[in-house]
Amino acid sequence: MPALQNDTFLRALARQPTPYTPVWLMRQAGRYLPEYTATRQRAGSFLALAHSPDLATEVTLQPLQRYALDAAILFSDILTVPDAMGLGLYFADGEGPRFRHPLRDEAAIAALVVPDMSKLRYVFDAVAQIRGALGGSVPLIGFSGSPFTLACYMIEGQGSDSFATAKKLLYSRPDLMHHLLDVTASAVTSYLNEQIRAGAQAVMVFDTWGGLLSDAAYKTFSLAYMARIMSGLIRECDGRTVPRIVFTKGGGQWLESIAGCGCDAVGLDWTTDIGAARERVGHQVALQGNFDPAILMSTPAAIAAEAARIIAAYGPHPGHVFNLGHGIWQQTPPEHVRILVDKVRECSSSSRS
Amino acid sequence: MPALQNDTFLRALARQPTPYTPVWLMRQAGRYLPEYTATRQRAGSFLALAHSPDLATEVTLQPLQRYALDAAILFSDILTVPDAMGLGLYFADGEGPRFRHPLRDEAAIAALVVPDMSKLRYVFDAVAQIRGALGGSVPLIGFSGSPFTLACYMIEGQGSDSFATAKKLLYSRPDLMHHLLDVTASAVTSYLNEQIRAGAQAVMVFDTWGGLLSDAAYKTFSLAYMARIMSGLIRECDGRTVPRIVFTKGGGQWLESIAGCGCDAVGLDWTTDIGAARERVGHQVALQGNFDPAILMSTPAAIAAEAARIIAAYGPHPGHVFNLGHGIWQQTPPEHVRILVDKVRECSSSSRS
Repeated sequence: MPALQNDTFLRALARQPTPYTPVWLMRQAGRYLPEYTATRQRAGSFLALAHSPDLATEVTLQPLQRYALDAAILFSDILTVPDAMGLGLYFADGEGPRFRHPLRDEAAIAALVVPDMSKLRYVFDAVAQIRGALGGSVPLIGFSGSPFTLACYMIEGQGSDSFATAKKLLYSRPDLMHHLLDVTASAVTSYLNEQIRAGAQAVMVFDTWGGLLSDAAYKTFSLAYMARIMSGLIRECDGRTVPRIVFTKGGGQWLESIAGCGCDAVGLDWTTDIGAARERVGHQVALQGNFDPAILMSTPAAIAAEAARIIAAYGPHPGHVFNLGHGIWQQTPPEHVRILVDKVRECSSSSRS
Repeated sequence: MPALQNDTFLRALARQPTPYTPVWLMRQAGRYLPEYTATRQRAGSFLALAHSPDLATEVTLQPLQRYALDAAILFSDILTVPDAMGLGLYFADGEGPRFRHPLRDEAAIAALVVPDMSKLRYVFDAVAQIRGALGGSVPLIGFSGSPFTLACYMIEGQGSDSFATAKKLLYSRPDLMHHLLDVTASAVTSYLNEQIRAGAQAVMVFDTWGGLLSDAAYKTFSLAYMARIMSGLIRECDGRTVPRIVFTKGGGQWLESIAGCGCDAVGLDWTTDIGAARERVGHQVALQGNFDPAILMSTPAAIAAEAARIIAAYGPHPGHVFNLGHGIWQQTPPEHVRILVDKVRECSSSSRS
């Protein structure tokens, strides 16, 4: 593999000084980009795109061709693992993800096993191919959904505002929920380790729905399983250390607990003041975030002002990776993304000189 | 007015000792009760129900006839104030609230004025009639939506996951957003003061959507206007002190700031540990909450265990009003509500003996 030319992202995750604040954006390869839409149309469907290492490589690289981003992230779906477990992932037209065989009874949950990783070969092939295509320009991030977030979809069978069925199971039959989370955490650990072996230079766990839980239930049913994944991940691979990022949307209140789960960095949504967050965690972890993606729909001046505010709030300490507080919106004008990325570079370079 | 027989709710809001933890439930008069559904059918529509002081009184009292609740809350809608401003509130079949004339341009926002309170007479009449019907059994809570939450609906025209249009205005034209919030805060202040004059013994401001904002934007665009309302509310009326509760869903991170806005109590959703919250605010305010309404869908044992956990977490200090962390769900079995209410009484009585 060629030597890495831009290691600002990895250095920031290690809380080492960088000449500027590195930036990447959740869902940076996606529907707001016309070239993504064109590739997806060629693929025929989202799943065909995700299943093709060639096409996944193509769309992973698209935002890097437009913007001065400091990391690439594997193009894939968070629900690949339950799909490999046999739940049958599909996308209804214009709808979110669905499972053909959601977990509807005790027998279905009892029958769950860690899938053979060969079923996820297409993901590891994509990782290897993207690494090659990047040619050492920037690091590649691998990722997975968190066990609790995957469990929400596996039980509910689709997205939801409240995941009522999943919560009902959690409270009515915590034993079944723990079994489901236990198997899923083992599967996610293997999945991320295979991504690391295939070339992922950092990994991120997306806990999109942990923020729906009470403080007590979050720690028991979401954070504990992410901590188990952290302890099971390969720390070094081919002589490189592989940093891990954990992101719980709505998890700002639990920052100290998340920072103690074994991760190197915590992703923050925009509801948390990143300066106060940095005071709370000190040098223990890096922080990633936390620009409200809604602001990308407003004006260049507002985008620049908010980027500058976040960089100033974090302050001069090392350990900040600039990002959005959640995925980029489909309606985002691509030109606004450039304004954000350039402003982060400009602001953070001058604050260090 | 007859003397108040059960003042545990008001005493808890004043951080005075009570023989047990008082309890009421957000949306306690609602669609989970068959008698509510029957009254609503008789009324013909939700708005006809809300506009009739007789019927509003009837449904306000229904949950008190079933359960040992320690407060009643006015049956009304949070969008009455923008309706009185001329936005034309309606409910599409099976949908949430909508406005016929959402604020679509600068001229519409500039034209907004505080409505004549006579347009909201039906609400004040309902308050007076409910007070009479309660006969001093328990106190009556009046309420309003927060200026930011009302602004979200006024701009968007209906509910939304992200209130993208409202956020776009906030960031693109903060001057217009401030004008809208300014007028709305004045209107809400008058509205709550009229409810107090009509007999409301406590008032609550529901900030359902403030939690969608960044820390900085929340303080500027939501909390600042709630603080202005607090400073404009009648403190004493007919020799009684009128306590004020502020509830921002998703506001757990901002608890100290909310506690300083001039309110007597802060409502908490279930994501915040109420014991940690009590440590953060000390004796400054009472805390109201924070049972996850999803748990009412599970088992009697889980409901009882979670109620006991919350009461133990709050501890022996005065100043706890038990409630849900958000409104009760339509699918809630009414028998489960009884289990919760009775368990709160049982647990909190024994913890004080």
